[in-house]
Order: sequence, then structure tokens, then C-alpha cells
Amino acid sequence: MKTFFQPASIAVIGASPRENSLGGQLVVNLLYGYKGRIYPVNPNYDEILGLTTYPDIEAIPGPVELAIIIVPAPAVPETIEACGRKGVRRIIIESAGFAETGAVGRALQERCLAVARAHGIRVWGPNCMGVVDVPQKLFFTFMHPNIYKDGLISGRISMVVQSGMLSAGFLADLMSERAVGIAKACSIGNKMDIDESDVLEYLLADDETDAIALYLESIIRGRKFLELAGRARKPIVLLKGGKSSAGAKAALSHTSSLAGNARLQDSLLSLAGVTIAQDFQQMMEIARTLAMVGHTPARARTAILTFSGGAGIMSCDMLEQQGLAVANLSENTRRALAEVFPDWLPPANPVDMFPAFSLKGPVAAYERAFDIVVKDPQVDVIFLHFFVGLYPNYERLRRFREAADREGKVVILWAIGRREALFAFRREAQEASIPVYSELTRAAESLAHAAGYTQKDKTTRLIQTRRPRLSAGALQVLAECTDRVWDEFDGKRLLKACGVPTVEETIVQSAAAAQAAARKTGYPVVLKGLVPGKVHKTEAGLVITGIASAGRLKEAFTELAARMKGKGRILLQRQMPADYELIAGVLKDAQFGPCVMFGIGGIFSELIKDVTFAPAPLSQTIARKLIRRISGQKLLMGFRGAKALDMKKMADILVALGDLAAACPEIEQIDVNPFIVHQGIPVAVDAAVIVGGE
Amino acid sequence: MKTFFQPASIAVIGASPRENSLGGQLVVNLLYGYKGRIYPVNPNYDEILGLTTYPDIEAIPGPVELAIIIVPAPAVPETIEACGRKGVRRIIIESAGFAETGAVGRALQERCLAVARAHGIRVWGPNCMGVVDVPQKLFFTFMHPNIYKDGLISGRISMVVQSGMLSAGFLADLMSERAVGIAKACSIGNKMDIDESDVLEYLLADDETDAIALYLESIIRGRKFLELAGRARKPIVLLKGGKSSAGAKAALSHTSSLAGNARLQDSLLSLAGVTIAQDFQQMMEIARTLAMVGHTPARARTAILTFSGGAGIMSCDMLEQQGLAVANLSENTRRALAEVFPDWLPPANPVDMFPAFSLKGPVAAYERAFDIVVKDPQVDVIFLHFFVGLYPNYERLRRFREAADREGKVVILWAIGRREALFAFRREAQEASIPVYSELTRAAESLAHAAGYTQKDKTTRLIQTRRPRLSAGALQVLAECTDRVWDEFDGKRLLKACGVPTVEETIVQSAAAAQAAARKTGYPVVLKGLVPGKVHKTEAGLVITGIASAGRLKEAFTELAARMKGKGRILLQRQMPADYELIAGVLKDAQFGPCVMFGIGGIFSELIKDVTFAPAPLSQTIARKLIRRISGQKLLMGFRGAKALDMKKMADILVALGDLAAACPEIEQIDVNPFIVHQGIPVAVDAAVIVGGE
Repeated sequence: MKTFFQPASIAVIGASPRENSLGGQLVVNLLYGYKGRIYPVNPNYDEILGLTTYPDIEAIPGPVELAIIIVPAPAVPETIEACGRKGVRRIIIESAGFAETGAVGRALQERCLAVARAHGIRVWGPNCMGVVDVPQKLFFTFMHPNIYKDGLISGRISMVVQSGMLSAGFLADLMSERAVGIAKACSIGNKMDIDESDVLEYLLADDETDAIALYLESIIRGRKFLELAGRARKPIVLLKGGKSSAGAKAALSHTSSLAGNARLQDSLLSLAGVTIAQDFQQMMEIARTLAMVGHTPARARTAILTFSGGAGIMSCDMLEQQGLAVANLSENTRRALAEVFPDWLPPANPVDMFPAFSLKGPVAAYERAFDIVVKDPQVDVIFLHFFVGLYPNYERLRRFREAADREGKVVILWAIGRREALFAFRREAQEASIPVYSELTRAAESLAHAAGYTQKDKTTRLIQTRRPRLSAGALQVLAECTDRVWDEFDGKRLLKACGVPTVEETIVQSAAAAQAAARKTGYPVVLKGLVPGKVHKTEAGLVITGIASAGRLKEAFTELAARMKGKGRILLQRQMPADYELIAGVLKDAQFGPCVMFGIGGIFSELIKDVTFAPAPLSQTIARKLIRRISGQKLLMGFRGAKALDMKKMADILVALGDLAAACPEIEQIDVNPFIVHQGIPVAVDAAVIVGGE
Repeated sequence: MKTFFQPASIAVIGASPRENSLGGQLVVNLLYGYKGRIYPVNPNYDEILGLTTYPDIEAIPGPVELAIIIVPAPAVPETIEACGRKGVRRIIIESAGFAETGAVGRALQERCLAVARAHGIRVWGPNCMGVVDVPQKLFFTFMHPNIYKDGLISGRISMVVQSGMLSAGFLADLMSERAVGIAKACSIGNKMDIDESDVLEYLLADDETDAIALYLESIIRGRKFLELAGRARKPIVLLKGGKSSAGAKAALSHTSSLAGNARLQDSLLSLAGVTIAQDFQQMMEIARTLAMVGHTPARARTAILTFSGGAGIMSCDMLEQQGLAVANLSENTRRALAEVFPDWLPPANPVDMFPAFSLKGPVAAYERAFDIVVKDPQVDVIFLHFFVGLYPNYERLRRFREAADREGKVVILWAIGRREALFAFRREAQEASIPVYSELTRAAESLAHAAGYTQKDKTTRLIQTRRPRLSAGALQVLAECTDRVWDEFDGKRLLKACGVPTVEETIVQSAAAAQAAARKTGYPVVLKGLVPGKVHKTEAGLVITGIASAGRLKEAFTELAARMKGKGRILLQRQMPADYELIAGVLKDAQFGPCVMFGIGGIFSELIKDVTFAPAPLSQTIARKLIRRISGQKLLMGFRGAKALDMKKMADILVALGDLAAACPEIEQIDVNPFIVHQGIPVAVDAAVIVGGE
């Protein structure tokens, strides 16, 4: 990968002397900061922008480490071929017109890949804007030079963007409008060979990168990405495009990516410690926060120094909404602050600085108050609010940062104000490495992500390498059942064979047999009609619950049998007392492989969609993590005097499901909904097993 | 109110010749654009900034319509007194040091109010920044002149801000950094007399205001505000500060804990058609959208013209997330677009414009594509994405607006790019009256609010004037029960007397009596121990469910009696089959009076907190609206083959509860949790009544 970022020599195939063409801009951009050898390739010119130009790549006298291709798509395969002959082993294809355009382009892309593979060439792109390294002033891209004309702002966030135009637009906006500093920007396009995992792996080891922000429309090697993310020691922030049905359609035709199930992906990625963003700029603000803010305790007890009582109040609301704490200032701090304030306003948190301006002037007031608050042992974070452009500027931001560092505290900024002063202020904050926000919500949200990232468990292995276990009994049931969609009874036989607790039940052939069975289990009982192809039994009227007597049982049996019209079989179950219901299951994902799901079940499962996923097989540790990740923790922890969920038992069940999923490639889905929980014990009451069909 | 905005003459009491003092800035600001007579008042000067200055207000020769007071707080009462003698009837007190500082300041404020009332004077403030009228260049405020030095941007949004400094900072930021245009900015401070409802009423009738944005920390006259909002024909966007838990009292009932501080208010206000914002800038972006965007169909079928495939995909995701639709372009549109595009990229929505740039250039490409898409009958909204500052500017925004107006369509913009060009572009968009966003999430969210506002029902009366009805039976129960917290049995007696369907139940004195009662109701049954003071019976182990036989009933009775240790009484209920559970209740709110709550009940009620509120008494229409406003509509509409909720019955219940709340001032809270719903019929199974105690 290093050659893509630091090649000793670059050939530009499709270079042009016209400065506003893509091939011209490529050369202009290379000349801007690249120190290695540049070889323009174009059969029509001897010289381009003062550089000796070659008719083809093989005519170049010295070795070429990297070739950037910007010729029309149809000419690309032969160009790669020529690169191969020349001995070039790294290529960036920036031309468009490949898989993103449909079947013909896809075939062309396949051909390119085949040629590259034959020569042992690694390819970046096509349909991309290549590589930018802001601190080194390297622009291996055809993007417009105006992007960096307003001035580069170096930083320690690297970004990976699947979309080409976006990466360019983004860079301009981030640096010139928002004063966000960037390390490397990687536009990876169609990812025909080099993909996000390759680039992520490189950036995780890159000394100039403190945090990585990715905009992706697909993740090609899901498990590889999870593994990298899981053991990453740098924050990773991800924005995933194509989550909606409409967006997924667009993704299909854009960078030819298939969008997976968003909930599954988000859940797996956040289990791996990836921070999930919702929008472009928000992604960068979170990444910047994670890059700049060090260790933050989970509750991030925050002291607010503000010029406006209203902004102080809103900050409290937002911190609390994010699960963070408004610091309770210590007695010493209050006493010390009292000096800075007029008598009529006793200091409290938020500290309203405005009354103190008149005594010491704004700069002195802020600095004095900061010095007092930063030493308070009950404060983890100092949140400064500045109004920029009216009063003398608060230029000495580095001073705040240094004082905070000395005390092991975090400092963040919210600034509004007059345009020019504000921009200068933001640049200064960037240089002082203090995150600055223009919206309070973003500040609170980013701080919460920083606190969350601090808690990231970097030791637990997410991807297990052990062989999944499967009992002989389970293998037997799998051999016996040959349908694509199993009925509930067979599904639970399989679960039982795997050690999953299931409800007491039996197939009954007659009303009399049902009565005999009910005498054993005890009333009340449930009758279910298992009809092939009817998965949603309740909706089809095939479930009769609350049967409390032998007489009612006989009636119910007759009713149900009539509804079934001779098809399928009838199942009698003990009716379980329920405190609440859970759901668990397994699912095969194209990118991430077999996964286990866990969440809130019953009628609310589809309403609240509180479910989490982990890659199968699972360790006990990951299984417990999975259980602790659902939002409805209150329910599990012993709600309204009920017993808490037996964690060991539930985790064992999830481990068993994971082994089943990992060991049996033929299993496509298992759905256990509900697990009825009573007195903390989960029991599988319904199950659907779907095995891979033709 | 008009005098506060358009006085013929203004006295500035506390005027100063020092231009950087508050009293000096006031005079500077008035001189900037105010055309009426200005009378500085200060005993130490004969002239201030060229204006004749008077030693006191009574020395002014002519009449004074408005006095602005900026003298130290302790001198304010006598200053008001003097104003009264002079015949001034409108005063803005901009001085601080009143109720916001504690008990002494509060007493001072009370004294001011008493003096003002005695003279029939209406007072604005204190502790505020007064009134700004941007189009008229009126600055009745001490804010720093730098605020408007960068250039004023007139618009048609008026804002009301409770916090002083914030209103100033806000104005500077909105106009100079964000290019958001403003009509009037009203800083109302401590609201000792004039409050948000007064100002709202004025702005609703103001010709220069198309939308109103409010930042409030309290709403003094809740019902008045609701009434104004309910019949308003202009959009109102509200940001409420002080939602966090600080003042939340230990909740006795589910209703009060679910109401929280903010949930009740937000729910009532949004029922009245108020749009609830989460942050300052977001509030203004929503308000601007509502002011600029006309009628939008509910799903706002949106066509996206973008320079970046990635931004197009994200836009789809976000529109869908907001419940809006990505337009399905008609065949004609696709065919016409094909001309603008190179052959290799078939046009679809989102329309990726980048490939078309090379054929016609960006400006022509956008204009041509816009003209085609705006005529598509399957498109309601055109969402343009611009990258500003690289290619020739898209200067003719007015053209887009006019074309959209001609077709009755909406046009919105997302723009990123290079700083200077971007700001110029935003100003231009403001002038063309097209909302421009720098974040896609904000665009989608604002559009959703616009669609929501279009659907606002401006005809239904929210505040009922009819007298609430109460049956003789209900009065009788109320007379009989004297405890502060009633037991469940009495609670349901009251409900029953009001016509609310309740579960079949009876108080039983012995196991034998229980068995006799169960024979009547039929098994299974439930036993509950009603012990004074124990509201949470389940948690206290006082509920035994699923009693299916006479034998078990005897056991259960004995068990329960033992647990109760001779206190309270035992209730036997028929155990109701449940499809799901609802909650309803009534609550008295200090600002909004008696309110009715409705929502999802049972164990999930506290987890998902899906509840809504309306002011009591309710009409049938409002009751139905209340039911339709909870998020879990799927559940009510016949989930998994169950029968849909009987709307008439549920609405009748809510009307009855509302009448009860409105008619009985002594009732503090009623909590009916759960209403068990089976086959669409709701039945009250548990109830708690709390009457106002000492």
C-alpha cells in the first residue's frame, strides 16, 4: 500500500497540456507538491507543462512505481497490459465508465482486473479521485486546483470516500469553509481491487493519522473490516450510504455496490467499536473530536463557561440527553469563582460569564474562570462558549489546551459570531487541537462519542477462530428435515438438540390425545396448527391460546382441525407464564457471513426494533456483550420487581445458535420468536428454520 | 403592542455619551435607523451624540411614547414612577439585576411591576435586549453596533428569545455567518409583564413576518399560548430550554413520570401545530424553510439533481428516514433527461449531473435538467445540490425559484464549497427565497417539517370552552373517597361511574367468597392485595395472576392475606385475555392546566415512552387525534391479524377522563395502566387516583 501514498516516480497516462482538462489538472496537481519523478504519457506531445512527455509507458527510461491512468475507459485494459510489460506494480485508475454504468462497463472492469492480476499489479479505482496527502501537499488526483487554492489546512484525520466528486467537494468545504484539518483523503471509487479494508489497514498504521472517517456505500470484505476495526487503536467513524430502499437502488447504479441490511451492519460495526455517523459534516466533526480529545470518563462531567445563560441551559439539556453529566462544582471552585463575579450573581454551573465581563474584561474573566474550573476534581471536561468578533478576541486558545493537558482534562469550544473573525478563530482552534463546534447539539453528541470510544473494549476478540461445535443429535435432526422452511416442531427439535431450552410440547393426532397430553403438562395449554408454508400462524388464525379445561380443549381441537382442512399437524404446548418476550436468531449476510441476532421480542419486536447482531460463532464474552447492548436493558435487569434475566443461560443459548449458524452453511435463517421469559428463565416457544433452497 | 415596535418618540433613560457603554450604544443604535424623536435622559449632560439631553423624563417637552430604561436596577422603580407621571405608557427595561439574581432581585421586580400597574404602564423586560426590526433598521437595544456592521440581511422570520446575550450573538451569527435573513428580533428577558404570548400574538398579525421562531425557557400562560398557536396561520418553531431533569420531582404515578417536564409540553405544543426544534441554528433553518416553502404534499416526492452520486444516495436515505418519498421520475422526464446525459449513464433519480457537465457545461446542464424535472407530475420538490466556487457560479437562483413557482413546485438547495463563494451564494439564495442548507440531514428534516406543517389542521379548536360533564354517580364516589391516594377498587368505581369500561371485579373477604366470585366470572382469575400506600402492587408481590382452579384460588388467597398482614383488602378480577396494553390518564400541569394522556401501556410504557397529551376537556375530534398521534399506530390498527382498536370507544374514554379532570380541580392525577385491549376493545384493569392533598 505504501507505494500508493509515497511512490518514488509517477507516470500520468492520459496527461494533457490543457490545464482545465482532467489529464492537465493531474499534472498541475502533481507539480504542486510532489517531489519524485513525474512522467507524463501522451503520444501527441513531447512536453507537457515543462515535463518531458513519453508516447507510451514503455518509452519511459527509468522505473515507474505508480501509474495514474486517466485515458477513456475502453483503452484501459491495454494500458494496464503495457504497464505490466513495463514492470509497474501499482496503478490508480481515475477514469470513469466501468461497473457504475451497467453490464458493459462491469465486463470491462472484470477484464481490467484479469489483466492486472496476470501481471501481479494492485489497482486502486477505477472511477475515483485517487490519493491526497494534505501535510505533504501530494495530490495524486485530477481534482480542480481551486480546491487547495484557498489554503490547505493540515490535520490528523484521514478520510476514505467511495464517491469521487464528493471527496473533492468535501475537501474544499472542510478546509475552506469549516477549517477542519485533514491528513490523507482517499477516494477509492469502484474498489475493483484495493478496497476499504486495505486502505483502513494502511491508515491504522499511519503515523500522521489519529482518526479515520469513511464514507462507504458497501463493505466488500465484512469480516476483514470487523477484525481490523475490532483491534484498532484509533477511532474509526463511518457514514454508510444506501441504507434506504431508494438509496440502495441508487447505490446499485452508482458505484455498483450492494447495500446490505443497514441495521445488521450498523450493529456489527458498532460492536467492533466503529462510531456510526449520520451525515458528512457530522462524521468529520465526530472524527475530529475523537482525534483531538483524549481519555474522557464515561459520564464526562462537564463545566460550562458561557456568555449566554440560554446557551448554558441548552448545553445542560443536550449533555443530559446524551447521557453525560453536568459537573457539580466543588465548594472550593465556587468560592474561587466568586472573586471573578459581581456580588449579585452567585456562580453555578453553567457559569454565566457575562456579568464578570464588566469586572475584569472578557479575556481576563474567561482565563481566570478557566484556571479555577480546570483544577476542580469534580470536572472532567470544560466546555467554553465564545462569541467571536465583538469583544477582543480570545486568541490564546493554546493556553487553554495546555492548562487542560496539565490537569488531564478535556476542553471543547462552541463559537458563534461574525464571519471573518469566526473563521480565523476556527483555524486557531484547529491549530491548538481543540475541537470547535458551531452547534451545541454537535458538541454534546461528539463528546458522547468520545466518552463511548474511551470505553471501547480493545481486548475482546470479535472474530472467533475456534471450530463451531454441533451435537450428534443436531446433525441427526438436520439430516431428517429436508424442507426449505421447517415447521415449528422440527425447528424446536433442532434447538433442543443444541441445548436450547424449549417449551414442553407434543404433536397430537386427536382431541383425546390432546386431552391426555394436557393432563401431563397441566392447563392452560395452547394449540397450534402447523401448516406447510404458513409461517405467520397467529395472523392465519392457527393459534388458540388460553385453553383452560379439557372441554374447551376438545372444542378448540375440532375448530383448529377444521381450519386446517386436513393439511399439516397440530401441536399442543403448555402455555407459559410470561414476564416479557425476547427474540433470537441467526442470519447469513453476504458481506459479514453468519450472524446471531438478539433483541426484544413479541408484538413489540417490529415496533421498537431493538435488536443487535454479532458474527458467529460467538464467545461467551461476546454473547454477554450482545445481551447488554439492547436498549431495553431495564426490562432484562429485573423490571417491576421481576427476576433479572439469567445471563449465563441466555448467553449459552446465543453461543449455541452461533455454533449452529457457523457449522451449517445450509442454514439461511433461524428465528426464535418469542423466547418467553418468566422468573428470569428464557424458553423458546416458537421457532422457524429456513435452509438454503435451490 | 404596536408602540413597542413603532413608537413616534423614544426616551433613553440612562443614555451615555460613552459610545462603548450600554447607555451609549443604545443611542448609537437608535441613531442608526430610527426616524422618530429620540430623547436621551441623563442629569449629567446637556447633549449626547448631538441630541439634546434632559435631566429627567419629566423635563422632556413633547410626549414620549416609549421609554427605554438602562439605569442600575435599584433606581428602576422610581424611574418607572417618573415615567408614569410623564404619561409614558410603554417601557422597555433593559437593565439586569432583577428576578434572575435571586430573592432580593425578585422583590425589586415585583415592586417595579406594582408601580407600572398603578400607572397603567405595560413593561417589556427587564434583563433583556429589547426590540430589533431588521428591514426598518430599528435597534431599540444596547447590543453592540458590530452586530450589524457586517451588513444586515432582511428576511421574513421573526424571532423571540428569552435570553439577552443569546439574541445578540444569534443575530450576528445568523446574518454574518449563515446569511439567514431576519424580520424582527425580540428579546423578552424576565417577562415581568409582556410575555411570549403577547409578542407571539403581535407577530402572528405582523405583515413582515412569515414564520416565528422562539427560544423560551418557560411558557407563562400555557393555555393562551396553545390557543394562539392552534389557530395560527403562520408556522411557529419553538426551542425550549431547561428540559433536563433538574426540577423533576419523584413521580408517584406512571402518568406523571411519563409526562416528564418536556414530554407533556412538547406533546401539547405539537398538537397545537408548533414545530419543536432541538438546537438554535436548526430552529432557524426550520423556520426559514417553513417561511420560504409553500404548500408541500405530505410525502414531498423529491427529485434530486446532484454533482455527487454519494450525496444523492445519502439524500435518499435521509428523505426516507424522514418519511418523505424519493420521486419516481416519469417516462417522459427520463427520455428528456437522456439528451442532457452521455449515452453511458441512463438518467435516474437521484440525477447525477456530473457526467452531463462535459456535454453542456455545468450551468446549462443544471438549468436544462431542472426545466425538465420541474414539469414532471410525479415530482413535488426539486432538491438541487451545488458545489460552489469551482465551476462558474450558478448565479441565477431566482430563475429556479420562478420556474418552480410557475409549476407549483418546491425548490430547496444544498451547497458546499469554497468559503467566499459559498457565502455570496447563500445570500443570493436568501434573496431568491430558496432555503439553502449546508447539511443534507437539515434539508431532509426541514422539508419533513414543511410537509408536516402543510398538513396542520387549522380548523379544529384545541381549547374547548364547553362545561365538562360529570355524572351524579361520579360525584357520589368523589364524595365517598377521602384518601389522597385511592386504592384500585375505588379508582375503578369512579371510572365506571364516568362510563369507562372496567374489568369485572369484586372485593372478597374470604377464600370461600373468592371461590364463589370466581364461579361467576369464570377462571382464570387474578387476586390483588390493595394495601394503603402501596401503589406499585406487582413490585410488592401483591398480585397473583393465572389462578386457573378453585384449589389454586384458595391457596393464593391464603398466601396473599399472609403477605398483607391484616392491612387493606383483597380484590378478585377476571383475568382478561390481552392482545396488547394501553395507558391513559389525567394530570394537572402548572402552566397548561388539566391534561389527558394516552399511549402504549404495560411493561413497555416506561421503556418506549410513547405517549401524547391534550388539554382537558377534549372534543371527540381531539380525542381521536390524540390516539392517532402515538408512534405505535401499527399496534392499534390491527397488528398481526388482531382486530383494530375501537376508535369511538377509546375516544369516548379519553373524553370522559378529560371531563373528569376539568370538572374536578381536586383531582391531581389519574393513571389507568393498563387498559387491556382484546379484539379491539379496551378495558381498564388497574387505576390509581390521586387527589390534591396537603
